[in-house]
Amino acid sequence: MPTTLKLFSSPGSCSQASHFALEEAGADYEIVNVNLAGGEQTRPAYLAINPKGRVPALATAQGVITETPAILLYVAQTHPQAGLAPLDDPFALAQVQSFNNYLSSTVHVAHAHGRRASRWADDPAAQAAMQAKVTKNMADCFSLIEAQLRDGAWVTGDRYTISDLYLFTITGWLESDGVDYRRFPKVTAHFERVAARPAIQRVLAS
Amino acid sequence: MPTTLKLFSSPGSCSQASHFALEEAGADYEIVNVNLAGGEQTRPAYLAINPKGRVPALATAQGVITETPAILLYVAQTHPQAGLAPLDDPFALAQVQSFNNYLSSTVHVAHAHGRRASRWADDPAAQAAMQAKVTKNMADCFSLIEAQLRDGAWVTGDRYTISDLYLFTITGWLESDGVDYRRFPKVTAHFERVAARPAIQRVLAS
Repeated sequence: MPTTLKLFSSPGSCSQASHFALEEAGADYEIVNVNLAGGEQTRPAYLAINPKGRVPALATAQGVITETPAILLYVAQTHPQAGLAPLDDPFALAQVQSFNNYLSSTVHVAHAHGRRASRWADDPAAQAAMQAKVTKNMADCFSLIEAQLRDGAWVTGDRYTISDLYLFTITGWLESDGVDYRRFPKVTAHFERVAARPAIQRVLAS
Repeated sequence: MPTTLKLFSSPGSCSQASHFALEEAGADYEIVNVNLAGGEQTRPAYLAINPKGRVPALATAQGVITETPAILLYVAQTHPQAGLAPLDDPFALAQVQSFNNYLSSTVHVAHAHGRRASRWADDPAAQAAMQAKVTKNMADCFSLIEAQLRDGAWVTGDRYTISDLYLFTITGWLESDGVDYRRFPKVTAHFERVAARPAIQRVLAS
């Protein structure tokens, strides 16, 4: 009896990376949209699924998984035929996990200081000061990423992995963060190559 | 020919979690202290190892690994006899990775707004406003962790894993963040159980 995975997500948020991974993996899944603007993530029904009040959350037959890098690895590990992570090569897998963790703990955090500055200070002037630094911090992060990418390769080398899906998702935020993505030709080329994949097109059209 | 792993770290920083993992795993390793107060992490010699200018970084025969959750998983995967992660159980491993990712992208980030507020705003008043919220944010994070811990168990259940080492490291920061750890009896009991382990004692004494 197959069990359908349920991804609690919101379009445009980081949860989209998990949606891409499920589609690339050929997983049996459904999407449950969480209305972040309406505050649905802070209500008891959703907090019972994810007490952190955030997306994504992936409901499986065994329980709920939260945090993008953990969900991405789980999807790769449970759908090995899709080849979305080098599961049997500890060093290569560490490069994937390192990159994904940098995206979640540094790049996503830099972005979040724009719309979610109230998490870290109550004073509106302080929040404005954080918002004022988002463009510079995101550009700094993507300068590092640009330096690390190689022409024609995927994020961690010759293999298309969950890191490519996660980078694609966050690259899509650059324009709204005031960063001109054309400063980063390798990042831009990477974005276009991921965007052209049929699985990504299907998610974006859904 | 065995190759000695080199961990670039700094006492008291999050890199200590990786040090604990190497010792628990019985790894062949050495510690290279990076003088963060002296700015060593921003100089070319260190940036050649980790362009992000942070600790930890783990130098292996194949290259450098950065980001705590990635290093912890690598140590567990390359020292399977130590049993520090449920490598063959995707759901259980996802719980470990989810917890570690929460520590790195939310809890460590909440803590960093104390001493590293300048990362996210240039205005000294804004930095002070961020520092003023650290105690509340860390207490909120640990309320969630306390609710998730079970008496007498390890972070993700019956098995002692890399998540316990990482939580132990960050629990050690609570007092300096103005949080009374006695508010969290399960976290406190967990801290004491990890502290009593011989491998942890050896690292703390070194």
